[in-house]
Amino acid sequence: MRTSLSILLAAGLLLAAPAGHAQVRKKAKAKPAAARPATPTPEVASAPVSDSVALRKIFNEALLRGESYDNLRYLTGNIGARLSGSPQAQLAVEWGKATMEKAKFDRVYLQEVMVPHWVRGSKERGEIVGNKDKGVKVPVCALGGSVGTGGKLKAGVVEVHSFDELKNLPDAAVKGKFVFFNRPFDDALIEPGAAYGGAVEQRALGAVEAAKRGAVGALVRSMTSARDDNPHTGTMRPAAIPGAALSTNAADRLSLLLKASPELQFELELECITLPDEKSYNVVGEIRGSKYPNEIITVGGHLDSWDLAQGAHDDGTGCVQSIEALRLLRAAGFKPERTLRAVLFMNEENGNRGGTEYARLAAENKETHVAAIESDGGGFTPRGFGLEADAATLAKVVKWAPLFKPYNADDITAGHGGTDIGPLKEGVHPKALIGYKCDSQRYFDIHHTAADTFDKVNRRELELGGASMAALIYLLSKYGL
Amino acid sequence: MRTSLSILLAAGLLLAAPAGHAQVRKKAKAKPAAARPATPTPEVASAPVSDSVALRKIFNEALLRGESYDNLRYLTGNIGARLSGSPQAQLAVEWGKATMEKAKFDRVYLQEVMVPHWVRGSKERGEIVGNKDKGVKVPVCALGGSVGTGGKLKAGVVEVHSFDELKNLPDAAVKGKFVFFNRPFDDALIEPGAAYGGAVEQRALGAVEAAKRGAVGALVRSMTSARDDNPHTGTMRPAAIPGAALSTNAADRLSLLLKASPELQFELELECITLPDEKSYNVVGEIRGSKYPNEIITVGGHLDSWDLAQGAHDDGTGCVQSIEALRLLRAAGFKPERTLRAVLFMNEENGNRGGTEYARLAAENKETHVAAIESDGGGFTPRGFGLEADAATLAKVVKWAPLFKPYNADDITAGHGGTDIGPLKEGVHPKALIGYKCDSQRYFDIHHTAADTFDKVNRRELELGGASMAALIYLLSKYGL
Repeated sequence: MRTSLSILLAAGLLLAAPAGHAQVRKKAKAKPAAARPATPTPEVASAPVSDSVALRKIFNEALLRGESYDNLRYLTGNIGARLSGSPQAQLAVEWGKATMEKAKFDRVYLQEVMVPHWVRGSKERGEIVGNKDKGVKVPVCALGGSVGTGGKLKAGVVEVHSFDELKNLPDAAVKGKFVFFNRPFDDALIEPGAAYGGAVEQRALGAVEAAKRGAVGALVRSMTSARDDNPHTGTMRPAAIPGAALSTNAADRLSLLLKASPELQFELELECITLPDEKSYNVVGEIRGSKYPNEIITVGGHLDSWDLAQGAHDDGTGCVQSIEALRLLRAAGFKPERTLRAVLFMNEENGNRGGTEYARLAAENKETHVAAIESDGGGFTPRGFGLEADAATLAKVVKWAPLFKPYNADDITAGHGGTDIGPLKEGVHPKALIGYKCDSQRYFDIHHTAADTFDKVNRRELELGGASMAALIYLLSKYGL
Repeated sequence: MRTSLSILLAAGLLLAAPAGHAQVRKKAKAKPAAARPATPTPEVASAPVSDSVALRKIFNEALLRGESYDNLRYLTGNIGARLSGSPQAQLAVEWGKATMEKAKFDRVYLQEVMVPHWVRGSKERGEIVGNKDKGVKVPVCALGGSVGTGGKLKAGVVEVHSFDELKNLPDAAVKGKFVFFNRPFDDALIEPGAAYGGAVEQRALGAVEAAKRGAVGALVRSMTSARDDNPHTGTMRPAAIPGAALSTNAADRLSLLLKASPELQFELELECITLPDEKSYNVVGEIRGSKYPNEIITVGGHLDSWDLAQGAHDDGTGCVQSIEALRLLRAAGFKPERTLRAVLFMNEENGNRGGTEYARLAAENKETHVAAIESDGGGFTPRGFGLEADAATLAKVVKWAPLFKPYNADDITAGHGGTDIGPLKEGVHPKALIGYKCDSQRYFDIHHTAADTFDKVNRRELELGGASMAALIYLLSKYGL
């Protein structure tokens, strides 16, 4: 119990915790990563509690004393953008380790990972050039892994909406031009992630496909249904020609102008370059299981972020929630029967080297993995979980759904696990790979843009997400799969 | 189909709608309230479609061609704050009528309503005064309906957390002072609305209770769990003494300083005043039922807003969604069997005169009301609906829940209808009063503050909400209750 809270309670003036909570948050603002007042003495669960009571304790802990939001404030504000190989990525590794040590996990350690090191460079310019060289500058950004333009690259533009359409164009229509991939999100799809899945091949493979036809560059409509001036970066398969994203407003404008003036030209200037690989790390924190210490439950997010903003929702929220999930269980007074691991994976955005190495080491060490959970969809209001698992395992977990109903997080279905935990499937093959699902209507507005900042995160939504993950881990640890 | 879209399709270049959609949105930006290109010819449903296909058509229409977001942009940007009795409230009435006429409802009319006319005035100041008259200015705002201070009002402060605590204080501890009501939200409650319900008596009745004890004013902690510098206004029962809200940061600061210096003083200066009632209006738009025209389904939001910002989530979103729900049904090609009414209620915030008058006229005209739906919880991502209805009626509607599952809006339970539609209960007594439920974790951060602005609204979340309401109306119209 916080010190100020004790005083206030003694004075008989308080009926509920939050004044102390406010004071703690003030402290947190001044010294973001400093040690907090002693955490409440965990109530050792002398008598077993029902699952619904256990979940209630976890959610109370998160809503009244949660630390995700303050941890995220530090990660995004004091460290910020942290692309693999960058100095900030190393700061993030050190932050992750320190934060887990502060949470007093049983063991905190690093796993070495070699990561690609791509840098954007300072010059990044796109311009639609018309008559008499009069031009309109438009927001662009290099796609991750792109080569630079080696100075100003000016060429005509041909617009397509599918790889088939590109294939059916005659050579003369493509050679020496930019190919402009402008198939938008299918806005009618309810899940923005599905729309992303239907469009993202253009970003990932557009440059490769265009290079095959002798194009000089690929311009890709940003992966979002929002109409604004924020270009969305993201990884592309390495190609001989540069690839850049246009903001959706810029894409719409280019498309309109192309219809009026098919002979217009586009000028692109990118200074990005791939440097030699760098040594980096996954950060792992463990709470050893009391009954089945050899059975492991992993929960993680990815520590690296794109370089245009702060990596708040992608994936700072997943990182802080993963640390918090373990911290909450202990703070709520529980001793997990199985071993819990919070993992901050490096390099999810452009290589997945961290997830791959984690899985390799797990297999090499002949570990037994029960389940792995990933939070990489933002820190928005909880919805539920998506499982990659056989039917029997899915049924087991779905039976717990009613326990999540009071928390609006009971949408537990077959679904997608996550990029970082995916490699575990081939090796140690956990019974379930589980993706934490939060509401995603806002996610792709900010995904991979300059708008992915701390202010876009809501404290309660974030803490409710961490609590949902902790609750699932509680049940997985107690019952196994 | 939009004109530009026809051209693009003819040129064989398009595979999906959104480019045209972007163009429409551009048009909307330039001329916010201008007439749009001719709406698509409604596909007259020659063969009946299944309910799930019907809902799919409604949601497609909303996501691809929805007009809520652009209507809200106009209401919040060109009109903005629109407290009952203000000139902007009258502009809002005219906007509502014009928007419904543009949507080509069968009938659009106004219902006259006398409304209270309270104005905030320009001077609004709060200061914590310490030694040697050194002071700290803190964010405050007058509560709706408060009297002014008649100049500077300086007095000591006594902090309480409940009306019982106030009751137990001796007269000398209260007389001539400000009573500072500082019971915070219970952050452990999952639904912020429940926390609001548990704390709002302080705002509504604090001044009245304090006046009974001879206090000179009431200072109330803002009704939110956020910790920031935005004071939250809201209505209070008229009292002899002034009532003002402090931002939560200011409340925490005052509380801390009071413990260090119980003799400190607070200085409040408010110029607010209640003027004579003004004539205003509900705005009603109707689509006449084809089979049971005498059975009415109402859907509405409240047109008035508090005066600190733009009334975006409270309740611009409810207004545009209500208009949109009727427009969507027609645009998707349906002819409702029962009569549908979109109602923009005036004066929900401080008097509920609009809802009361609507109900009075309904009873006077001996109308038959099947159901009434209200959207007054913001325009966030949909969750479902809360019903005030008998068990049999509730069961009927809950049976439709699976139809809403693809849209994540299937949380249909017993709950609360709404302030504006509440008065219908006593008179025409619809079988169900239904509150549209969207996620509320963010709502009370901005509720009644300067932060309730258009940028807080997400287009997809808003249009999905309007579609959810249209879908429920579709089913109510088809099956009755």
